[in-house]
Amino acid sequence: MKTWFKCVMFGALALIAAGTALGDEGLWLFNMPPDVMLRTKYKFDITPEWLDHLRLSSVRFGGASGSFVAPEGLVLTNHHVGRSAIQRLSTADRDLMKLGFYARSRAEELKVPGMEVTVLQSLEDVTARVLGTVTPEMNAIQAAEARNLAVAAIEKEESQITGLRCSVINLFSGGLYHLYRYKVFSDVRLVFAPENLVAFFGGDQDNFTYPRYDLDVTLFRLYENDAPYVTPHYLKWNTGNLKEGDLVFVSGHPGSTGRLLTYSQLEFLRDVSYPWTLAHYARRRAGLKDFSRRGPEAARFALGTLFGIENSLKATTGYHSGLLDAALMEKKLKEENDLREAVRRDPEMEALYGKAWDEVARAQQTYAEIYKLYRFFEGGAGFSTTYFSTARSLVRLAVEKIKPESDRLREFRDVALPALTRRMMTVTPVYQDLEIFNLTDSLIQLQKEFGDMAEVKWLFAGRLAEDVAKDLVNGTELGDPNVRKAYLDGGFQSVALSNDPMIKLAWLIDPVSRGVRKRYEEEVQSVETKNGALIAQAMFKLRGAAIPPDATGSLRLSFGPVKGYEENGKKIPFFTTFKGMFDLAARNGYKDPYELPERVLSAKSRIKLDTPVNFVAACDSIGGNSGSPVVNRKGEFSGVLFDGNIQSLPSRFVYTDVQNRSVMVHAKGIIEALTNIYEAKPLVDEILGKK
Amino acid sequence: MKTWFKCVMFGALALIAAGTALGDEGLWLFNMPPDVMLRTKYKFDITPEWLDHLRLSSVRFGGASGSFVAPEGLVLTNHHVGRSAIQRLSTADRDLMKLGFYARSRAEELKVPGMEVTVLQSLEDVTARVLGTVTPEMNAIQAAEARNLAVAAIEKEESQITGLRCSVINLFSGGLYHLYRYKVFSDVRLVFAPENLVAFFGGDQDNFTYPRYDLDVTLFRLYENDAPYVTPHYLKWNTGNLKEGDLVFVSGHPGSTGRLLTYSQLEFLRDVSYPWTLAHYARRRAGLKDFSRRGPEAARFALGTLFGIENSLKATTGYHSGLLDAALMEKKLKEENDLREAVRRDPEMEALYGKAWDEVARAQQTYAEIYKLYRFFEGGAGFSTTYFSTARSLVRLAVEKIKPESDRLREFRDVALPALTRRMMTVTPVYQDLEIFNLTDSLIQLQKEFGDMAEVKWLFAGRLAEDVAKDLVNGTELGDPNVRKAYLDGGFQSVALSNDPMIKLAWLIDPVSRGVRKRYEEEVQSVETKNGALIAQAMFKLRGAAIPPDATGSLRLSFGPVKGYEENGKKIPFFTTFKGMFDLAARNGYKDPYELPERVLSAKSRIKLDTPVNFVAACDSIGGNSGSPVVNRKGEFSGVLFDGNIQSLPSRFVYTDVQNRSVMVHAKGIIEALTNIYEAKPLVDEILGKK
Repeated sequence: MKTWFKCVMFGALALIAAGTALGDEGLWLFNMPPDVMLRTKYKFDITPEWLDHLRLSSVRFGGASGSFVAPEGLVLTNHHVGRSAIQRLSTADRDLMKLGFYARSRAEELKVPGMEVTVLQSLEDVTARVLGTVTPEMNAIQAAEARNLAVAAIEKEESQITGLRCSVINLFSGGLYHLYRYKVFSDVRLVFAPENLVAFFGGDQDNFTYPRYDLDVTLFRLYENDAPYVTPHYLKWNTGNLKEGDLVFVSGHPGSTGRLLTYSQLEFLRDVSYPWTLAHYARRRAGLKDFSRRGPEAARFALGTLFGIENSLKATTGYHSGLLDAALMEKKLKEENDLREAVRRDPEMEALYGKAWDEVARAQQTYAEIYKLYRFFEGGAGFSTTYFSTARSLVRLAVEKIKPESDRLREFRDVALPALTRRMMTVTPVYQDLEIFNLTDSLIQLQKEFGDMAEVKWLFAGRLAEDVAKDLVNGTELGDPNVRKAYLDGGFQSVALSNDPMIKLAWLIDPVSRGVRKRYEEEVQSVETKNGALIAQAMFKLRGAAIPPDATGSLRLSFGPVKGYEENGKKIPFFTTFKGMFDLAARNGYKDPYELPERVLSAKSRIKLDTPVNFVAACDSIGGNSGSPVVNRKGEFSGVLFDGNIQSLPSRFVYTDVQNRSVMVHAKGIIEALTNIYEAKPLVDEILGKK
Repeated sequence: MKTWFKCVMFGALALIAAGTALGDEGLWLFNMPPDVMLRTKYKFDITPEWLDHLRLSSVRFGGASGSFVAPEGLVLTNHHVGRSAIQRLSTADRDLMKLGFYARSRAEELKVPGMEVTVLQSLEDVTARVLGTVTPEMNAIQAAEARNLAVAAIEKEESQITGLRCSVINLFSGGLYHLYRYKVFSDVRLVFAPENLVAFFGGDQDNFTYPRYDLDVTLFRLYENDAPYVTPHYLKWNTGNLKEGDLVFVSGHPGSTGRLLTYSQLEFLRDVSYPWTLAHYARRRAGLKDFSRRGPEAARFALGTLFGIENSLKATTGYHSGLLDAALMEKKLKEENDLREAVRRDPEMEALYGKAWDEVARAQQTYAEIYKLYRFFEGGAGFSTTYFSTARSLVRLAVEKIKPESDRLREFRDVALPALTRRMMTVTPVYQDLEIFNLTDSLIQLQKEFGDMAEVKWLFAGRLAEDVAKDLVNGTELGDPNVRKAYLDGGFQSVALSNDPMIKLAWLIDPVSRGVRKRYEEEVQSVETKNGALIAQAMFKLRGAAIPPDATGSLRLSFGPVKGYEENGKKIPFFTTFKGMFDLAARNGYKDPYELPERVLSAKSRIKLDTPVNFVAACDSIGGNSGSPVVNRKGEFSGVLFDGNIQSLPSRFVYTDVQNRSVMVHAKGIIEALTNIYEAKPLVDEILGKK
């Protein structure tokens, strides 16, 4: 445990002392914005036009965020969001992670294989349409089926009508259902990326900390019909300064929070899920570091995974620390008991909601029982290679595609198939040794946990994990896109009668995998959903106020003031400068992770050193918000969110703004770097509208 | 090859010489009877009442036949049809196969676990309803799907309306679809069975031969609500004699014939299917004979399987002999070419039907390619143990039951489920050593043919087949009906997450099994069905006459004269007597297979020795007709069919009545035996209506 743990403790305790001062909490829905709060506290009148423009200027990169920053399809996100794209475009001779990239002309822009960006065109409450199919006589499983059918029907119908990718998300654990209609861009080209050294300055060591000095920025351009996508919905650039106390907004896709979880769900995370996950990450991290030492190509390929794992390890450690804090847990329990007591006092409410918490608790017991089996089989932790993912997709697609849509696994519904097929046909560089290494590691764990299972014995046939992994990875032909195409075209028979060892493996473990998934869905998920919705209803009734839902990866709006904070009695200013970056590098002898690329060092004399690089604001955010645009009252692009400080992590469960801050790259810093480090004048002109 | 092979040859040649004299060919439908033929040739006016009474007096035993012979649910069939029931009721201490059985009172009747008997209540042409769902744009696979959906819908609807088991059968390879509605009896009790020695006198050696002297008869009683089922539809007993030339009728369930198969289908049978099947039977027969020598219990358990295999081996050898006869094949080819030539001369017919034969021929090539894989996996020849059948049913039921009905494998449609479940819950004696022996044998073959497949390697894990079989048979808990019940109740999860080794095996091979089944259904079966129907249509149009369809296991009527025949220049009389039986036994020193039970020997003085035991008639029949009642013009029970002579076997493909005869137990012989051997006066009184 490092010092930040104490800070977290301090934060949590401060919160509990403060009692109700929860700050600007909330990852709000664009169709249920916190208008009253903004008017009352900030005298800001949020208008539908302002909201629509921000929403249509926001983009989604898989599980992360970005925004249009110029009329011709130019989108800005974090370097770490674009990381896998940049790696996919790299070769042994030309490592764009190391070298950075700048397309001086449109012709030089690099199309990213298989990359997709989506923009939320419209959203609509469909709760009545979904929940109207559930009758009181249904049990949790039947109700889940009815809801799933309704959701699938809406998604399909809306996709057909609009030609957009339509997805129904559920909020408040199934209390509300909203339909999101996305425009999909599948021609995404890389325009600009800095060197990884400057984007990820401070490395894993400084990840989730502040002060920071990272140019965590990358620019892509979205194309349609081979021409840049032209849109009026882009964010004008704020070329001015930000002051302490300025109100800013974050528009992005926070992945998940657990603030409305019951106490038993938090216990499950604390005692079952996080401990396993942390041990898993720690082992993977050590392994990948070893692997990286095999040589520069090994290191290059391991880098992406390693970054993700280190990032998750640190984040999860932070989340876990919150749950390990007895005071925080006690507060959670008290809140829950207060709510349950209020429910109990009203016989009608007691009849409706009284059993919800115990049912969720029982589901946690089941989940604990099946957790490892679920992770290893359905979660794929036992078969960690990209080839297995492909094989499983082929095997399941073969089975699911011939079923009526309503009966398929969700990820094989018609609306999902084009993206799935495209993903499977994407040609991406694969490093065989890394695949063998990853698979070996996962097979060792699999054998340790489930060595007595027939499937595992069959697979190993008395051999060492490494030999099994080698035979599978070297034996499969799934690396060849023509082979994948043949299976996709050949349908069930061709996959069922395939002799590819990876496909055989996918068939071998599928019954167990589906079995544990079904147990999870029926005995855990559907129980959580049903009762979570009941608990949310009880809360609405008793508190009578709008509560923002937990994050679900859908577009959200949060807000708060630009604001420094105190740590260990020291004031931390709200922004950092280029001077600070050079000073930090110098103090560390320009050594990893404070090495700076030659291009940056040699530009030092040209750079205005007092230009802000990063800044913080007391806005609610969480993983998935990476790449989110941060705008001022006028809706102007003022920075891009790339992190939260270490004190932000326990906010996954209990929000506080005492020290919790989102960390951004400053809009001014981006322009300064593009101008004086990368000499990217045409790009700056495009961004500032001077073209 | 024994002498009968020459006889077959002679028969076939005689037929070809005779040209058109095809005799009383035809396994006719009860709703399309050969009325004109009967009127013209036999001056017999077949009436709807006569037909309805015969149909409602006929019963179905699985794949075989029987009839009501008294008002209170008494049904008569062959001893070899009741064989598995008799074995199931036997124990080591009381072997009913050896001892025979007679219930002197209703209370002594023995209920057979899991046995079902059905009676065809009504039938209806639903061709328009089924084929109306097929449009001209559909390809063979789509058309098959449309037909299957229509069939499933009709079966389900009709079952719900009538409470009967409704099944749509297709005739002329899909040219006609008829709906059969069956009343199901599942309380079936054993009333009388002779000793196997007298029922199967002459054993395998005399099987499919004539003259014969077999008392191949068993009586059951059908119960409903624990009381005998009372019906006006039973056959009055013909106590008179039969004369040469007397017209008789056979009502029963012939299993399959291939008279309308194309030449390429016959070649497939001759060159691919029969050779494999015969080698398989021969090997199994030798193995089971070895196994029987382990001791009396081993012999007792092996007996049932052995009988079935010897029977099939002899029958298939006979069928094959027809196809190996160049003259027969040449005739078939000429007939086909003539038909094709006639089609070719009419451009409209050529457009509709011209390609049908070549498409069927292409399907045969595919079938040849996948034949062994199909037999070993989907056909189960690689996993020969009753436990595997149970495991596969559980595994597939788990998967299929959660699908909508129209998407399920046919055998898991709703109408089929009650019988399937009942079958799975039936408690039947199992002899572990025989299960291990059978499984070992099949695994050895599996490894020989498919030892390179991952599934087979996994299963063997370097061990000997016998050790694999032992682990599976000794390791499975599926012998326990409570365990089977738990899986049936537990649904998908419980089967998917089971650790039972036999269930694991069923999961392991299911993808390959389903894959080859799908190839078969799509590339062979649906092509044969589509084009077979076209060929039948062409034949109807060109010949303009009613042709009876090939046998499909559904209830059929055939007819012909009681008639002896010539063999090697010697006249074979149409009936045999008890005297002949005793003489044959004596000539063979009363040694196996001509041993007679003590009870029969000691009854010799009481028996009228000139009473007929067996007789023959020139009626069309084939396997599945076993147990069929044979009636005279008045519809009176005159005997029970139990065999065909060796010359009847090539009639599977080309009918001739020169020597081809059905072999029956004579009604008079049955009464004589019941009276004077078994002293079963109450039973005789019941049969003769003297009670």
